Amino acid sequence: MKEHESDTLSKTNRINLLFDFYEPLLTEKQRTFLKYYFLDDFTLGEIAAESGISRQAVYEHIKRAEQVLESYESKLGLLAKHELLMRHAEELTLTVKRLTLPQEREKQLLAGIERLRDRTND
Amino acid sequence: MKEHESDTLSKTNRINLLFDFYEPLLTEKQRTFLKYYFLDDFTLGEIAAESGISRQAVYEHIKRAEQVLESYESKLGLLAKHELLMRHAEELTLTVKRLTLPQEREKQLLAGIERLRDRTND
Repeated sequence: MKEHESDTLSKTNRINLLFDFYEPLLTEKQRTFLKYYFLDDFTLGEIAAESGISRQAVYEHIKRAEQVLESYESKLGLLAKHELLMRHAEELTLTVKRLTLPQEREKQLLAGIERLRDRTND
Repeated sequence: MKEHESDTLSKTNRINLLFDFYEPLLTEKQRTFLKYYFLDDFTLGEIAAESGISRQAVYEHIKRAEQVLESYESKLGLLAKHELLMRHAEELTLTVKRLTLPQEREKQLLAGIERLRDRTND
């Protein structure tokens, strides 16, 4: 994979993650354009045709919506905190496994860690 | 303690917690009035005198700022998620203690749980 493609992928990935965290704070318009472009993978031209506005206008809507997501992240840091939580949960999982406890007890602890990771799904 | 006083305290407590989570999203004005009233415990009259606006206007600023906090909570649920995380961490701590592991291993696990709880301070 070329460096450029890898950059694009990691940017798409980041926008998708930020979208997951901050979607409820976006306007309907911001939500729609980001979805078209980053989730559905439409081109600017396709979105322009679909929305009846110029390719340039679509581009600006998307740029602006990205900035809104990054601005929320710089204020609340939910993605950064989530990544830290996942790292600490992973470390704790390794610590538990290194203890080589009786299977039932290990299972109990790992289930407890799983609940900490998945708290957003409760 | 009278029921009314207990209600007021638990409301103050809730607003203070929401303020901790959503302060970065507030305007300067919202932040200032909430701080005066809920953190510094000034009366409406004192804030009015300090700000050079009417008691009624202060009251409306505070009401509005409370609604903004509750609106963010209804969208992002950070306080609810935090409380769930704390509850799961507490349960996991109890599970670890019930295992009666050698002291060094128990300490290691509890430190790992502590990191999960305190992730916002990293």
